[in-house]
Amino acid sequence: MAKSMPKSMATDAARNLLAQVKWDDAGLLPAIAQEHASGKVLMVAWMNREALAATIAEGRAVYYSRSRKKLWRKGEESGHQQTVIEMRLDCDGDTLLLQVEQAGGIACHTGRHSCFYRRLENDAWRAVEPVLKDPAAIYRK
Amino acid sequence: MAKSMPKSMATDAARNLLAQVKWDDAGLLPAIAQEHASGKVLMVAWMNREALAATIAEGRAVYYSRSRKKLWRKGEESGHQQTVIEMRLDCDGDTLLLQVEQAGGIACHTGRHSCFYRRLENDAWRAVEPVLKDPAAIYRK
Repeated sequence: MAKSMPKSMATDAARNLLAQVKWDDAGLLPAIAQEHASGKVLMVAWMNREALAATIAEGRAVYYSRSRKKLWRKGEESGHQQTVIEMRLDCDGDTLLLQVEQAGGIACHTGRHSCFYRRLENDAWRAVEPVLKDPAAIYRK
Repeated sequence: MAKSMPKSMATDAARNLLAQVKWDDAGLLPAIAQEHASGKVLMVAWMNREALAATIAEGRAVYYSRSRKKLWRKGEESGHQQTVIEMRLDCDGDTLLLQVEQAGGIACHTGRHSCFYRRLENDAWRAVEPVLKDPAAIYRK
């Protein structure tokens, strides 16, 4: 985790950190990924204990996919990894905030910079951010 | 909602907006409050349909308190209201991002600017942001 979290961090310490997090009934908590350089909020995903431990150990964002019910190393298919610069826990201990460097400048599976591309305008959520890369090109094998 | 959402917005339109949101099994979704001017992520709280409708209608952040099981007009006790400048929905439709102006510059019940004041450092979550105002002074009647 950049300067603050050597990858060699002992497992005991990791267990300690995890114990201070308030997991929900499903054993998860939401994690916000904010782009360190721009301050843009890129996405929100979920972590379980294993995902948080892997994020700490690997220095990259590892989430838990609720739909696929397994760990999801962000960028494992798209190449759009997130290097974790800093990690913060909120006052209640039930939400994480990650400062990340976003590989490729694309966090969203739609090919946009951020997942928060729909803005409330009058009576509708309107897409206001451009697609930077065709998802078909991102996810092809 | 500043320029984009007049308070007189028709109820039909509001119903339409709410219908496009993916609520979880408890009828909630997380809402991130980001300070518009600084880009700082201030807090995450939850909204139900009624809270989101009230936020849209009133132009200020109204959350649903899971512990108190009722609407919570942010700042109703502390005076630390959040004026909503812009609201965005993510690609999955299950998380909101609010750009806000934070009254008093304090979002956290601990008297800090942001709820994300604990940073992961080596083997611990360490408080790295100052308390700007004693909570006892914020919440006294």
